[in-house]
This record gives sequence, C-alpha cells and structure tokens, in this order.
Amino acid sequence: MIAGRFDERPEEQVTHYGSTGTTIRRLIHTDNGAQTFAMRRFVVQPGGEIPLHGHEADHEIYILSGKGVAFTPVQEVEIEADMFLYVPPNEEHGYRNTGKIPLVFICVIPLLD
Amino acid sequence: MIAGRFDERPEEQVTHYGSTGTTIRRLIHTDNGAQTFAMRRFVVQPGGEIPLHGHEADHEIYILSGKGVAFTPVQEVEIEADMFLYVPPNEEHGYRNTGKIPLVFICVIPLLD
Repeated sequence: MIAGRFDERPEEQVTHYGSTGTTIRRLIHTDNGAQTFAMRRFVVQPGGEIPLHGHEADHEIYILSGKGVAFTPVQEVEIEADMFLYVPPNEEHGYRNTGKIPLVFICVIPLLD
Repeated sequence: MIAGRFDERPEEQVTHYGSTGTTIRRLIHTDNGAQTFAMRRFVVQPGGEIPLHGHEADHEIYILSGKGVAFTPVQEVEIEADMFLYVPPNEEHGYRNTGKIPLVFICVIPLLD
C-alpha cells in the first residue's frame, strides 16, 4: 500500500488545449504503482479554463471544492463540491471556474497502452 | 457526459468481510456508463471498520473527511482528508475510523471481467 498527501506530489501547469489557470498533480500514476488507471488532482483558478477537447480515455471525476461548469458541444452542467461526472471515451469536454475560489477536482483516467 | 450529486445515488450497507458501520454509494458504475473502472464513495462511522480482506482488483482512494487508519498485514497508516492511497492487486487491506466524525473516501476500482 502506498499513501501520501496530495501536496507531496509535484504540481505542474496544464498547458494542453490552451488551458489557463490550471494545475495538475498526478497523485497515483505509473511512477508510484498505478497499473491500469491513474488518479490526478486538478486546481482551476477563478476565471481559469480547460477548453473543449477530446481523447480516447474516459474520465471519472469528483468535485472537491469550488464552483464551475463542465461542458460538451451540446451540454453545460453547473458543478460544485460533492458532484461526480462521467465523460465517456471520445466525448469532447471542458471545464471552467465560474466562482471566486479555486475549483478542485479528482479525475481518474485509464492508462492506455 | 453524466453528472450528479453523490446523494442522488443509492446508499447501501457494506456487509462483506464482517464490515461494521460502513455504507457505499456507487457513483459511477455500469448502470450509468462506467466501462472499465468504477467510482464509489464510502462512509465509515466512528468505530466502524472494513476488516482485512484481499481481492484481485486494485484500489485508488482519496480521503474526503474524517480520520482513521488503513492497514495491511505489515503496515498501518494514519489517514485523513486530502490523502491518497494505492492498494495493489491482491494486497490484503482494511480501514478503521478512529475519529469522532464519519470517515469518507472515494475508492476507484477496475470493473474486472
């Protein structure tokens, strides 16, 4: 069993897809044991965004704090603490912090070959 | 994309392995879209426990609130909010709430064939 606090893991700026005000910590990843799926913790600052993008991996998300919207080309959902999201493979999606405090969420993703 | 609040999903008592004071909500599972891994939310009441047990599926866990211990036959780790745990396949493990408020955690597990 491995255990840690989220802030023991490195924090990196997210620059993919033109993202703004967003960082990621890979809590459980290949370097510390994950074999088939990875757990990451995202922080999106107020006004920050991960723009619409798609990929083969699906997402399972749990919102820890903050407020925002999750969106697809045809859907916009208000999100806040204690909500979950499932984004199927290849569905375009993005996230925006519409609140005044950081939007923080856990996002689990398969480690595809 | 599917979205919901944790308390929209049914809460069930956990009775496996002689567990006490423990409930589970399957937030993202086969019935609402999960294909390869599932996200569950556990609540262990003060004094409650999921005793030592093992299985092929590995776990990726994020602690939301409360205090307790996670244990294996050779290890005991104090856990609290904002910690993560990785339990490899077939490693025996258990959890106990040693605090005064519910111990709440997210646990992601592969949907094995």
